[in-house]
Amino acid sequence: MNASNPPVIGIIGGGQLGRMMALEAPRLSLRCKVLDAGGAKAPCAGISEEGYVEGGLKDSEKLKELAKGCDVVTAEIEHISVPALEELESLGVNVQPPSSVFKTIQDKLVQKDHFAKAGVALPRYMDTPNVEAVKRAAEEFGLPLMLKSRKEGYDGRGNCVLKSIEDAQKAFDTVNNPGGVYAEGWVDFVDELAVMVVRSTTGESKCYPTVSAIQRDSVCRIVVAPARAPESSRLLAQLTAKSAIDSMPGATGVFGVELFICRDGSVLLNEVAPRPHNTGHYTQDACACSQFENHLRAVSGMELGGTDLIVGAAGMVNVLGTGDMEGTTAALKLAMSMERAAVHWYGKAPAKLGRKMGHINITADSPAEMEKDLKALMDAVGLTMEGEGKGGDVFPPPPLVGVIMGSDSDLPCMSAACSILKEFGVHFEVDIVSAHRTPVKMTEYAKEAAGRGVEVIIAGAGGAAHLPGMVASMTPLPVVGVPIKTSTLSGVDSLHSIVQMPRGIPVATVAIGNAQNAGLLAVRILASTRKGLREKMEAYQRGMKEVVEGKSERLKDIGYEKYVEGMGNKGGTVNV
Amino acid sequence: MNASNPPVIGIIGGGQLGRMMALEAPRLSLRCKVLDAGGAKAPCAGISEEGYVEGGLKDSEKLKELAKGCDVVTAEIEHISVPALEELESLGVNVQPPSSVFKTIQDKLVQKDHFAKAGVALPRYMDTPNVEAVKRAAEEFGLPLMLKSRKEGYDGRGNCVLKSIEDAQKAFDTVNNPGGVYAEGWVDFVDELAVMVVRSTTGESKCYPTVSAIQRDSVCRIVVAPARAPESSRLLAQLTAKSAIDSMPGATGVFGVELFICRDGSVLLNEVAPRPHNTGHYTQDACACSQFENHLRAVSGMELGGTDLIVGAAGMVNVLGTGDMEGTTAALKLAMSMERAAVHWYGKAPAKLGRKMGHINITADSPAEMEKDLKALMDAVGLTMEGEGKGGDVFPPPPLVGVIMGSDSDLPCMSAACSILKEFGVHFEVDIVSAHRTPVKMTEYAKEAAGRGVEVIIAGAGGAAHLPGMVASMTPLPVVGVPIKTSTLSGVDSLHSIVQMPRGIPVATVAIGNAQNAGLLAVRILASTRKGLREKMEAYQRGMKEVVEGKSERLKDIGYEKYVEGMGNKGGTVNV
Repeated sequence: MNASNPPVIGIIGGGQLGRMMALEAPRLSLRCKVLDAGGAKAPCAGISEEGYVEGGLKDSEKLKELAKGCDVVTAEIEHISVPALEELESLGVNVQPPSSVFKTIQDKLVQKDHFAKAGVALPRYMDTPNVEAVKRAAEEFGLPLMLKSRKEGYDGRGNCVLKSIEDAQKAFDTVNNPGGVYAEGWVDFVDELAVMVVRSTTGESKCYPTVSAIQRDSVCRIVVAPARAPESSRLLAQLTAKSAIDSMPGATGVFGVELFICRDGSVLLNEVAPRPHNTGHYTQDACACSQFENHLRAVSGMELGGTDLIVGAAGMVNVLGTGDMEGTTAALKLAMSMERAAVHWYGKAPAKLGRKMGHINITADSPAEMEKDLKALMDAVGLTMEGEGKGGDVFPPPPLVGVIMGSDSDLPCMSAACSILKEFGVHFEVDIVSAHRTPVKMTEYAKEAAGRGVEVIIAGAGGAAHLPGMVASMTPLPVVGVPIKTSTLSGVDSLHSIVQMPRGIPVATVAIGNAQNAGLLAVRILASTRKGLREKMEAYQRGMKEVVEGKSERLKDIGYEKYVEGMGNKGGTVNV
Repeated sequence: MNASNPPVIGIIGGGQLGRMMALEAPRLSLRCKVLDAGGAKAPCAGISEEGYVEGGLKDSEKLKELAKGCDVVTAEIEHISVPALEELESLGVNVQPPSSVFKTIQDKLVQKDHFAKAGVALPRYMDTPNVEAVKRAAEEFGLPLMLKSRKEGYDGRGNCVLKSIEDAQKAFDTVNNPGGVYAEGWVDFVDELAVMVVRSTTGESKCYPTVSAIQRDSVCRIVVAPARAPESSRLLAQLTAKSAIDSMPGATGVFGVELFICRDGSVLLNEVAPRPHNTGHYTQDACACSQFENHLRAVSGMELGGTDLIVGAAGMVNVLGTGDMEGTTAALKLAMSMERAAVHWYGKAPAKLGRKMGHINITADSPAEMEKDLKALMDAVGLTMEGEGKGGDVFPPPPLVGVIMGSDSDLPCMSAACSILKEFGVHFEVDIVSAHRTPVKMTEYAKEAAGRGVEVIIAGAGGAAHLPGMVASMTPLPVVGVPIKTSTLSGVDSLHSIVQMPRGIPVATVAIGNAQNAGLLAVRILASTRKGLREKMEAYQRGMKEVVEGKSERLKDIGYEKYVEGMGNKGGTVNV
């Protein structure tokens, strides 16, 4: 950083993205100057330290006025004039990312051709300059067919789904603009993912985590990090995104990369935006360095900041205009009462229907712990999971604990672990996984559990009880083993099978048949970094003390003879 | 929040604290207006959306100019004119906190009297209007004696330590100003703590975590959160701070409360500042709602945001001027290359010696994991722990794992757990704690471990091996039990003693004598929420696979007969 002579960053566009960049700049010793046509109403007006140029984003003269005194010029939007940028560059202005990147990206057909050539996995696509070409595309790719404007599209604008060939002309006319039209084969994706990539002037690039981007009417409404997708797909999405950005010579700054995840877990690149992106807003409150800071760092030639999550989970809820301020700000007011929500208002007015007015970021120690706040906020912005055909819970958070057992005959015993987890409000899953009868399923379970977000596995088995140890050998997670009591050796066989693991692979073994303790141990493990859960465990321990004190009191009250009578012949404990 | 008509906050003082408030305001739909004498050089200039009034902070007319159009007026500094504030209030201006709070706080003797009356624990103090009174104070409190200006002191300015009674006049003259002088009895504190308290207009108050504030020459240099102090003292500090703030009628906004922790763990209030404070800067990157946001929320009548840490540990390093920009920004440049550091530059120039120019916040999953970055940054700002008399490591981070055993004869076995923790870079402690020979020590250890920051306990014991279970019954932490092999029953006695715990109190038991697995289990537990450690565990597991593959290769190479020969008579494994 240069504190003696703070670099000046010119930003083309003074909307919410420019505003959020400008708010991060001062503490990095950077000064922002902004070009926007919105005048005093632009979200950036009054925010950028180095001033504000009022004018159109494609106006060559205004761009020169912006560039004056700037060390670098960047943009918060891709719909800008490439020739005007080229002119700036020819005058010696440092434009980051360079005009060539905007040229590749802003025409979606050129973008597709570029990425196809670079070997990036894409949906099938075809140039459709006229209705005849649309019909050929429908023949080749089948219906429905996605028609898109090559230029100027965003948030679903410029897209049209062709369902019947009779509507070809109408659909073509809907999306046709001077930029032209192209067609994409229908992708039967299960979810939309996104990855923010940041690339420095030295060519170093880093990925933020893969997130799930939940859209309604083609507008991003909710983002969940990490994505609710298999770990392998999340990784594949990052690799795809990184290779796409690295394929563009001289690409700098932050890029929003949208992807589809298909039923088989494969990933296809959808679109790239050369700027901070709605799917990266969560980074403001969930990563060491936000997408806005990293964009500023990258375009001004600084080192890149950390892109990992510093919390267990994060979510972002877009606040769209409802037509009036009262309705629009309802979710924001709710967020102000939440312990781990951050409100980001864009300073826009009026609150026109569907206009992006602000967003709310929430964080938690794990996806499961974020669920309550996320659902409440979704409710407040009028989002339900209806119409998704999955009973109102399309994006279930991953379980924190996996409870597995070798046989359903172990369930009566193992259910005690589940009851404890339920009592402590820990999200868990239960399954039957047999080491000897379903070895392949066991291997898959063990290998995938950590990637799915599971943090502890409880495994119960009896006799030659191999399940806990075998699972432990294929996961880095702590595995709690429950030796099931057997009729032949009273469970001593199970105990020795589970506890006597070789050096290198530990199993946390509890007493024979004591699945309750396995549940409690899992809670203690989760609680070691979770304050709320720790407090619940302490309360549970105080509760046990009080039960014994109650019994002691009763023993004093009624005497040992009556007490023992009340216990019957079982020699068990008596409820007081 | 009010988005239709964003409230305007007037801030008296446009230094770094005002600047950091102003940077948080836009996203909350608040607009800041600032009064400062610094002109274009003030850190707030160009940052506050609603404009800037140039003028002295005590200038009644300028204050009125500031208040014009403001919904509320607050301050970033306590050295302001109470009569001028009272005049504003009489004109109907909403001043938060009210002038009465500044009146109580800005004269430190009045502050002491107020808190003493409210029953807050304080060092002994006495009014010393003249040298005779100073001598009486020295007689009563002993030497050294702390003399302080009643008004206008900060960062040690206005303080003087009287070591010899002959210097009484000189010391008195040093700190005497129109506000007068008072004396404080010497406090032999072991550490300085601080707690930020925020209080709403409805009287709700919340504490941020207790932090350690490390000073040099009476200037705060480093803050570590949570404080490196016993949990009971941390809690006591929060209670003391909260009761102090709640004792001031109508107190609103954020308060910095500085405290001493004494050798016996008791806590004394030192001073209170009615504003965001240097010891609360870490909240920007480590809490859901920073001290600056919470101050804005509180004074403008909004609900309070979350004050808990959302990360495992945080640190703050002040960047003081070194006389030139190059030297001053060295630590900032280092911070830019760290994954989890955030740079906060105040936009000041020149970098005068000792001037507060900026700060760096760092975060980590645990105090131990923060140590490396913290030490590197301390080094970069020229801070060593020398002169503290504790061998350069005064503030050791708490261990993540406690390894305990019933007897030193268990150490050869238990050291295998330590070796694993060392290999994985996990900070741990080792001690001998016997259930039967040191039951009181065991109780203390078990009860205090969680509060000290320990996340997992490994306990080894042999025979009637009570240690793991007894410890588990007195801590909410996961306890890993290692059954030590015995000569009489080969450790089966130890195993059954450790594993067969009653319902309610689990011990994660590993194989007889297998302390290595206990270490690995502790790592797996810690790794469940730590990405870096998880990756190390996966690498370790791959390593084990490779060792076996190597052996398999060699077996194929040399044949089983030669292989078995090479193993000698022990039947053990052979190194390849």
